Amino acid sequence: MSAPRLDFWFDFASTYSYPAAERIRALADQAGVALNFRPFLLGPIFKAQGWDNSPFNLYPAKGRNMWRDLERICADSSLPFRHPEPFPQNSLLAARVALIGLSETRSEEVRGKEFWGEEFCVGVFRAQFAQGRRIDDADTLADVLTGLKVAAPPVLAAAQSDENKMRLRTQTEDAQRRGLFGAPSFTTADGELFWGNDRLERALAWAVKQHRDH
Amino acid sequence: MSAPRLDFWFDFASTYSYPAAERIRALADQAGVALNFRPFLLGPIFKAQGWDNSPFNLYPAKGRNMWRDLERICADSSLPFRHPEPFPQNSLLAARVALIGLSETRSEEVRGKEFWGEEFCVGVFRAQFAQGRRIDDADTLADVLTGLKVAAPPVLAAAQSDENKMRLRTQTEDAQRRGLFGAPSFTTADGELFWGNDRLERALAWAVKQHRDH
Repeated sequence: MSAPRLDFWFDFASTYSYPAAERIRALADQAGVALNFRPFLLGPIFKAQGWDNSPFNLYPAKGRNMWRDLERICADSSLPFRHPEPFPQNSLLAARVALIGLSETRSEEVRGKEFWGEEFCVGVFRAQFAQGRRIDDADTLADVLTGLKVAAPPVLAAAQSDENKMRLRTQTEDAQRRGLFGAPSFTTADGELFWGNDRLERALAWAVKQHRDH
Repeated sequence: MSAPRLDFWFDFASTYSYPAAERIRALADQAGVALNFRPFLLGPIFKAQGWDNSPFNLYPAKGRNMWRDLERICADSSLPFRHPEPFPQNSLLAARVALIGLSETRSEEVRGKEFWGEEFCVGVFRAQFAQGRRIDDADTLADVLTGLKVAAPPVLAAAQSDENKMRLRTQTEDAQRRGLFGAPSFTTADGELFWGNDRLERALAWAVKQHRDH
């Protein structure tokens, strides 16, 4: 019998995606939910809403609260936190590399822990939000890959192939079609959309319930 | 010895303020936190951010998700829910009336349950979000008052006095000065700001902890 499924949508520049990425694998395993990491780009989606920058920069009071809130959330979860400079960072290359790793793990049977896709994603978030490194720098991404014992040069080359660029574009279009407007977001097999790190538990519970009921 | 304190800031037109208003009194009592209901107006604060309407109307994808999310939250808490028409509603008169009721209960010793201020606030949220009534209609507010055995005409008259109008203006300016940009919000005695119904538990825990540590 198939397991309940949850898609985890994130942009590597998204602040609340950091704690979500750190928490989601353990919570999904605990709930028996098959998890699909889906990096995408918020840029085109923000543009469609008339924003040419992060709303946290466009609306400073909102931004100040977000940084403080994120600091509190990380402290409560014993996650290290450093304010990234600059913010937001260009997440294009990181997302392309992630898709290479994640494309090998897209099956319900294999939940992917033994592949490097998910670990790479968490590693990129840590590089940016815990170590203060720039994720738009190929060296940072290479270091994350090397840390996972993955040879960096062929992966970085594959990430920049036309086929893989198109894959990320398709993924972002898919996000937009599903009504995503921010990150992190979570979608279930029946099309329910949950937005925000603080909705993760609720999204998992929904996935389990709708799978049981259908 | 004084108790920990929490200020609860809300606009009657704010959607997530409805579940927050329904939950906060019991949670605060349980945590031993003295609670201060502080209605204010989001309108001037949104205007300062360049918005002439609710962001949920300005950004439709965000709005769609909010209504669905609110529906799910209300269902989980067994709170009745109806989509208010129109949205947002003008909350000026409701806020002015609430200030009349709440002004009698502003003391740390008396936590206000025996006065009508808080019950009026919850009643206004129910009228709008559970019963589908218009809160910009003085009849709706009079019905809420009558339901609490409060004589409506003198209260409605006092609500429109210059002194009370100024009180609401001052309250809204105070909200803005504290960095509020949305509702519901919660502030502690040491100036910590929490935004959103989903941060209520965290805000109460902060109030208790900072009171104990100082």
